[in-house]
Amino acid sequence: MAVSVIERVRTQRPLIHHITNSVVMNFTANGLLAFGGSPIMANATQEVADVTRLSQGLLLNIGTLHEEQVKAMILAGKAANQIGIPIVFDPVGAPATRYRSDACQRILQEVTPTVIKGNAGELAHLIGLNVETQGVDSTGAADSEAIVRLVAEKYQTGAVCTGEQDVGCIDGDVFVNETGHPLLAQITGSGCLLGSLLTASLAVEGSPKEKVLATLSHYGRAAEQAAGQPDVKGPGTFIPRFVDALARGEEA
Amino acid sequence: MAVSVIERVRTQRPLIHHITNSVVMNFTANGLLAFGGSPIMANATQEVADVTRLSQGLLLNIGTLHEEQVKAMILAGKAANQIGIPIVFDPVGAPATRYRSDACQRILQEVTPTVIKGNAGELAHLIGLNVETQGVDSTGAADSEAIVRLVAEKYQTGAVCTGEQDVGCIDGDVFVNETGHPLLAQITGSGCLLGSLLTASLAVEGSPKEKVLATLSHYGRAAEQAAGQPDVKGPGTFIPRFVDALARGEEA
Amino acid sequence: MAVSVIERVRTQRPLIHHITNSVVMNFTANGLLAFGGSPIMANATQEVADVTRLSQGLLLNIGTLHEEQVKAMILAGKAANQIGIPIVFDPVGAPATRYRSDACQRILQEVTPTVIKGNAGELAHLIGLNVETQGVDSTGAADSEAIVRLVAEKYQTGAVCTGEQDVGCIDGDVFVNETGHPLLAQITGSGCLLGSLLTASLAVEGSPKEKVLATLSHYGRAAEQAAGQPDVKGPGTFIPRFVDALARGEEA
Repeated sequence: MAVSVIERVRTQRPLIHHITNSVVMNFTANGLLAFGGSPIMANATQEVADVTRLSQGLLLNIGTLHEEQVKAMILAGKAANQIGIPIVFDPVGAPATRYRSDACQRILQEVTPTVIKGNAGELAHLIGLNVETQGVDSTGAADSEAIVRLVAEKYQTGAVCTGEQDVGCIDGDVFVNETGHPLLAQITGSGCLLGSLLTASLAVEGSPKEKVLATLSHYGRAAEQAAGQPDVKGPGTFIPRFVDALARGEEA
Repeated sequence: MAVSVIERVRTQRPLIHHITNSVVMNFTANGLLAFGGSPIMANATQEVADVTRLSQGLLLNIGTLHEEQVKAMILAGKAANQIGIPIVFDPVGAPATRYRSDACQRILQEVTPTVIKGNAGELAHLIGLNVETQGVDSTGAADSEAIVRLVAEKYQTGAVCTGEQDVGCIDGDVFVNETGHPLLAQITGSGCLLGSLLTASLAVEGSPKEKVLATLSHYGRAAEQAAGQPDVKGPGTFIPRFVDALARGEEA
Repeated sequence: MAVSVIERVRTQRPLIHHITNSVVMNFTANGLLAFGGSPIMANATQEVADVTRLSQGLLLNIGTLHEEQVKAMILAGKAANQIGIPIVFDPVGAPATRYRSDACQRILQEVTPTVIKGNAGELAHLIGLNVETQGVDSTGAADSEAIVRLVAEKYQTGAVCTGEQDVGCIDGDVFVNETGHPLLAQITGSGCLLGSLLTASLAVEGSPKEKVLATLSHYGRAAEQAAGQPDVKGPGTFIPRFVDALARGEEA
């Protein structure tokens, strides 16, 4: 099952429009290319709707948000909703400031994502809860399950809560992914890249739950494979091998 | 012949002002440093003309264009034309949106590049043709030759069309480069970096054709060398070795 | 002594708010994570003061300055001064243009950094001197000592002048660090990353001089260790091993 989702991405190479934070643009583009998708990144309000209409999926990530970008996200998101392509929304740091929190609401009032993806603190914030995620992430799978159910219900979307275990809720079904590696938490942008890969998977045919689970599983296994390479000695040497592993077959 | 161009870059270390897209800034800066040039990247309209006047070359790349950046490119481009330093213009994604297409015309009406560099679809768009470049790049060298001749004539510049074979047209002479490796297409920003290296080569003494050809050849051979390293297993591990290879001598 | 500073960073994982240039954001974030700190990067004037108030330190780096960012730096800097967290100011390219030079003065009139960090040319410019730093950096340690003393006195801060030897002045004490490796000058953003690590060290307990010296020493030794790895063949392969080395213990 999982093989077919990733293979479909590689065959179709869906073009994914990213409006994402400036810290992770390069890593995201290289990671998505390795995974099998095709990245395009455009922010200007004059062209974002046109770029979205050329694309097969849209990723919205608020990590380095500013006013022009909020406008661009709403324009692109509306265009994506109109033409019926999937949107993944990543509310990076939503609980950190009033500005980010409000921007999430402004975007979610006008745009309907296919999947909202974040860590427990970010998703909890979207449903009015306050979860402490600094330091050791103490949110267990049981809490994550409640959170994704509530997010999915409130926003009428799919939801994916990343963590030691990833917990998803698509069409009312809750599921857990247990692949992954601690080195993912020691590099910047690993969660942001996952959002990009999820968008690419959602852009090909198949059941949404199958596509999300296959992507989470492939992503975590790629990290495990990379971390196990004998010449990986830390986060710096992990990154290039993780990108390589994303490009490999699931059977590897 | 080729040796001397690259050696001149390494000796003179030309300072190249980049107004480029935010996806590739880091990779471009590291690649140009390895090649032998010295990167500076400034976007503020208040200072771009001053930065250009300190520089020996100017790269304009529209990959993540916005209005302030169009203004900055025109200010910097006019300053470069005034002091007579080379400009490379890279119309990334020009056919994708009306906004990009119009921005190219706005820039090219006020700025005269030394070389316009792009893939077949981008260059064809600048001369009013429509070439499909999604999927397998089916544009052969014969088509590319026609395209670079027409771009060079219309804009009174040099032109370089990248692809499986790179085809250039400088001062009416058409030439082909056949070095390169498919991994270049699996990483983000390889074409953008080439634009930066071409600017650096054009900034040192020598015939423009010789400098462009030497740079295309060195770039492609660096990719071949990097791809042939036994510890390169995919696009992730290719990147650091490609940067290393750019720093090596041409004889290597 | 040095061990304890780095260990304190790793235990406390201080959250460092970066307003920095777009060339180095990804590398800085990965380098700081490896060192033991926790990066956050936000630029919007609507939220920078809030982000600073959540943080344990603030880095201001003007490498790709624009007007909105100057405003953001002043807002964040004032917030940092109010709550008493350390600020490192990195006047990248200050002598290059009138705009940058003026922006430094606008920021330094409203914000009091804990440490101003730059190369000899940048620091000299802040005290009205003109030092040529293009090409071989001929500034000796004696000149650097005079420069850091004058910067520290004029702006009532600590000062760190990077170069073949790094020279610091904290609370009137001048000190020299001699660790380091020439490959640091062949990659982009090495100085920018050092500013981030200094901010993280200043955010934990200890004497400022001890913390700055320990960080300079650890940084330079990490570069030496990375450069000495047998599979490092140039700047490209140096980068991942340098990030790994930042994550290692000082005894290594």
